[in-house]
Amino acid sequence: MIRIHGMSASGNCYKLQLLLAQLQRPYRWIEVDLLAGATRTPEFLARNPNGKVPLLELEDGRCLAESNAILCYLAEGSAFLPTDPWLRAQTLQWLFFEQYSHEPYVAVARFIARFLPPEHPRRAELPRLQERGHQALAVMERELATREFMVAAGYSIADIALYAYTHDAPAGGIGLADYPHLRAWLARVEAQPRFVAQGA
Amino acid sequence: MIRIHGMSASGNCYKLQLLLAQLQRPYRWIEVDLLAGATRTPEFLARNPNGKVPLLELEDGRCLAESNAILCYLAEGSAFLPTDPWLRAQTLQWLFFEQYSHEPYVAVARFIARFLPPEHPRRAELPRLQERGHQALAVMERELATREFMVAAGYSIADIALYAYTHDAPAGGIGLADYPHLRAWLARVEAQPRFVAQGA
Repeated sequence: MIRIHGMSASGNCYKLQLLLAQLQRPYRWIEVDLLAGATRTPEFLARNPNGKVPLLELEDGRCLAESNAILCYLAEGSAFLPTDPWLRAQTLQWLFFEQYSHEPYVAVARFIARFLPPEHPRRAELPRLQERGHQALAVMERELATREFMVAAGYSIADIALYAYTHDAPAGGIGLADYPHLRAWLARVEAQPRFVAQGA
Repeated sequence: MIRIHGMSASGNCYKLQLLLAQLQRPYRWIEVDLLAGATRTPEFLARNPNGKVPLLELEDGRCLAESNAILCYLAEGSAFLPTDPWLRAQTLQWLFFEQYSHEPYVAVARFIARFLPPEHPRRAELPRLQERGHQALAVMERELATREFMVAAGYSIADIALYAYTHDAPAGGIGLADYPHLRAWLARVEAQPRFVAQGA
């Protein structure tokens, strides 16, 4: 059985829980205490030199890092990753958008606001993170005004990847009031068969 | 003929110039003056709502953003993107690594050091960017101690993506002296058939 090394509070790890539930694929979850340095041990670094979770470990011990690369690998051959070259390219476009223009703001604002103490100096980063997070959500809003899911083919790993932190953006002080199409999309994602909420 | 909207000084745009040269695929280059706001015009935002270059435009007007998604799309069917599912997953892993753990430090340090005036306040970001940039290069060094290219199958778009900013890391104050395997890899990339240097 495949194993996922992950931290339950992480949206990047939740992506895999959501996809695997929807694929109905069994896996073993290995909780990793990131904040206690568990990704910096020699054993973990041998599996992922970049010291991050989530990490997929195959039955034979081979490992794959990067949440969105793992999504692509696990979704191959399913309806969650289009086979048409252009639709597949669009899917990848949104996966890279998520990691470059969305997660570093929406996820980091959530982390600081939710997990760091009130007097922590990193709270000074919040206004800029929130501003950039809103920019990312505005891009999504514009897209979702024209179609039901991020890629025209329908619900895909692009939606899974972007749902993971978007649904919890308010925890980082990034409210969703100005994004009606995005909120309708969140509800459509949550209505998908075998959807599981984070922490469920 | 396909068109690339790009800025010559950008490593993300150079990735496409390098791949297209090696694919021997003709294209039209449309220089975009990012710093003058050319990616914020209504015309450009209609093509890419995220307002970034590079942007691929097909003959029929369809557009694709995100440098590494464009690399995947253009490399499909060539030796630069493995077809084996695991090797393809590894390729994607390094493409996401590049955009999340490498480019935001190595490329941004280069941008600040090379393009902003000496008294610019963003220069205060350089020490942290350089530290994180070195962390990314150390991950690459560890990998490249064990094989010739980032993915075991041989030279691929993972090398192209990581070469784009790594070769110019010293411009951002991130020296390569401590990375002998990485420097040997740079030379191997530069020795590939139809290699073109940035700005050539």
